[in-house]
Amino acid sequence: MSYGQIFPQWRAAAGPHWPAYTQHRFVQALGNGSLPRAAFLHYLVQDYLFLIQFSRAWALAVTKADTVQEMRHCAATVHALIHDELPLHIGICAAAGLSEDTLFRAEERAENLAYTRYVLDAGHAGDFLDLLAALAPCVLGYGEIGAHLLAHGGDGPYADWIATYGGADYQALCHAVGGLIDSATMARLGDSPATTPRWPGLCKRFTTATRLEVGFWDMGLTP
Amino acid sequence: MSYGQIFPQWRAAAGPHWPAYTQHRFVQALGNGSLPRAAFLHYLVQDYLFLIQFSRAWALAVTKADTVQEMRHCAATVHALIHDELPLHIGICAAAGLSEDTLFRAEERAENLAYTRYVLDAGHAGDFLDLLAALAPCVLGYGEIGAHLLAHGGDGPYADWIATYGGADYQALCHAVGGLIDSATMARLGDSPATTPRWPGLCKRFTTATRLEVGFWDMGLTP
Amino acid sequence: MSYGQIFPQWRAAAGPHWPAYTQHRFVQALGNGSLPRAAFLHYLVQDYLFLIQFSRAWALAVTKADTVQEMRHCAATVHALIHDELPLHIGICAAAGLSEDTLFRAEERAENLAYTRYVLDAGHAGDFLDLLAALAPCVLGYGEIGAHLLAHGGDGPYADWIATYGGADYQALCHAVGGLIDSATMARLGDSPATTPRWPGLCKRFTTATRLEVGFWDMGLTP
Amino acid sequence: MSYGQIFPQWRAAAGPHWPAYTQHRFVQALGNGSLPRAAFLHYLVQDYLFLIQFSRAWALAVTKADTVQEMRHCAATVHALIHDELPLHIGICAAAGLSEDTLFRAEERAENLAYTRYVLDAGHAGDFLDLLAALAPCVLGYGEIGAHLLAHGGDGPYADWIATYGGADYQALCHAVGGLIDSATMARLGDSPATTPRWPGLCKRFTTATRLEVGFWDMGLTP
Repeated sequence: MSYGQIFPQWRAAAGPHWPAYTQHRFVQALGNGSLPRAAFLHYLVQDYLFLIQFSRAWALAVTKADTVQEMRHCAATVHALIHDELPLHIGICAAAGLSEDTLFRAEERAENLAYTRYVLDAGHAGDFLDLLAALAPCVLGYGEIGAHLLAHGGDGPYADWIATYGGADYQALCHAVGGLIDSATMARLGDSPATTPRWPGLCKRFTTATRLEVGFWDMGLTP
Repeated sequence: MSYGQIFPQWRAAAGPHWPAYTQHRFVQALGNGSLPRAAFLHYLVQDYLFLIQFSRAWALAVTKADTVQEMRHCAATVHALIHDELPLHIGICAAAGLSEDTLFRAEERAENLAYTRYVLDAGHAGDFLDLLAALAPCVLGYGEIGAHLLAHGGDGPYADWIATYGGADYQALCHAVGGLIDSATMARLGDSPATTPRWPGLCKRFTTATRLEVGFWDMGLTP
Repeated sequence: MSYGQIFPQWRAAAGPHWPAYTQHRFVQALGNGSLPRAAFLHYLVQDYLFLIQFSRAWALAVTKADTVQEMRHCAATVHALIHDELPLHIGICAAAGLSEDTLFRAEERAENLAYTRYVLDAGHAGDFLDLLAALAPCVLGYGEIGAHLLAHGGDGPYADWIATYGGADYQALCHAVGGLIDSATMARLGDSPATTPRWPGLCKRFTTATRLEVGFWDMGLTP
Repeated sequence: MSYGQIFPQWRAAAGPHWPAYTQHRFVQALGNGSLPRAAFLHYLVQDYLFLIQFSRAWALAVTKADTVQEMRHCAATVHALIHDELPLHIGICAAAGLSEDTLFRAEERAENLAYTRYVLDAGHAGDFLDLLAALAPCVLGYGEIGAHLLAHGGDGPYADWIATYGGADYQALCHAVGGLIDSATMARLGDSPATTPRWPGLCKRFTTATRLEVGFWDMGLTP
């Protein structure tokens, strides 16, 4: 998937960390249905806690946007995360016998803390672009994973998960986020962003966040 | 208007600053229709810029909330500000011949900078309650002003403005924000918040923000 | 005074706002000794409160630096402000009969709130450069004012103030801050920063902070 | 060690996580000299990167302090970290053949990212107390570890490290930080902080940071 002009360049700069994330053993096991149910539920609980922090990070992006257009985009994402995606998780977990209160009180694993707090700090330490570079691997990597798994079957016990991230709605969101990254980058770095002094730092942010996604899947395998 | 339990106490602590804000000459002129059109349009332009910063402040509140319930409330407010209230301003201004680009490029007056950046800093310097105490005078003061003007006529050239803030939708929003302030305060300070060490500081935040609202009306009278 | 390569360009971009600040009536009255004592003491009290917020802003810069070198510079400034400059103010005020507690409890004027909170927000909203552009007018403008007044006499009732800001120590600090701005700008925007998309925004930050400095002097004249 | 009134209560609330940190296998190996040199150097490199982030966190505390006294304390800590403790690390590493540039360019391990970014986020999400509760395990735990190892010998290949953290200067710093925690807590929560609604949240912050310290030692054992 391309999702715009900048994302493929950041992805290439991440080197082997990118496939280590998108083709992780957890992902393969989701796709072929071999993932133990306990691992999936454990992942869902941590992902619920993750989404809370991810919503905070997109809300931070609203405070760091330069234009009303950028604010609108980020605020719509916060709204979708809190009003659509969190309830989706709550529903799946409820069906598996986990109450929302159980979710909220679950202890965040260190791999979860590492990833989410790194993203938030990228925003506090830098500017809107730094934050987007740290947010991108999650949003767009899940799009790539979902599309890939769907194209290679997409059935089995985790068909719902695959249908969500491989489906048209989430793919449209990825294209929109890819477009936001492109326009935000050009507005700040001009037409040749890869030749500017800030480029290596943005690639490093993206790569670090990708490494932490790998850690998140590792954690998913150890309930 | 009471809008919950805490707001009336903060309002009382603000002493004469509160009526200086809610019964300001600008407000009276809005109510009796004597406000010059130039002053109203000038106010609308500055209020557009204000709303952008106010949206940022509510987004900051999302990042400082302790519970998903608090996050939901603040995220819904950000969404309403950016997707409903900003377009409302853009519409009124467009009808008066002011494009959105003109609005966005207008220079923020010092009184506007003072108020909005004080609110944002209250959030960065303190916690969720500090931010709510700085946000409260605007949200709830406009509710009080709108309800008062509507009860005393509400017609004339500024009837639309009065109908917006005095109307059921905005009044419901004020009651909801008053409830959020109450629950957030109790969750952090307990059942007798006025006896805790943080109370004077919260009253001071509310009072300072109220003083800066007075300055905003003063500014409105000097296009 | 040049204080590096970037500052003179930002100063030129500020147009008439710069002399409105550095040649303000308050400054002229400091220089020729005609400033009423009450105005000077009033200014000192507000400047004490200003320095507290300014220290917070330089501490924020520590959190937004990219290199240890940048951190060292900003941390040394925080230390100098809190351990040297604040006590200097406390000493002058004590000699005039104002205790530190009186200073700390004084009410910040709106012009003071506008300036300091704008600078802090520049840091939170943007990156290290945005913050430096908002900090620069105060640090370097005082250097220019001090040098100018010292070169044109520097005696009279406010000779101490002039000697402080026109003296070798403060001038050295200005050259160091000018150098920090230069190196930080080149590290992020390259060798031709004025041709990059971010340049107008940085000039606007500098200009807005300069406008707010004018407001601070205005406030100084109205105890 | 007690280091004030509040710290022992937070430490007790951390339960088994506290000894898991302060009596970790890495600590025991430091004390009896059995720690492989490679592990120690690996730890020093990560600790250098840690100290940069820790300096940022104490600088963030300056921006969140309520009084000049609190600001002074935190600014002095930033100064000591950047001007004394970082050079100490640079010196030890240089003696082992590692340049400062090598240190600065080393990749932060996930366990390091988790801990440091969690502390920074505690400050951004909450208030001064939240930040102190997240900072406390590192500062005071090292004091406890150093004092314990020194009292039980303190010689061997890591005698310098033990002498630093067990020595009078660092112990005095711990007592000062313990005092800051006490006074900051009383100023915000009153005389019975453990009975206030915020207490469980502060204990949780302290415990989470302690868990992440355990992870940091684990990381130290796997160069």
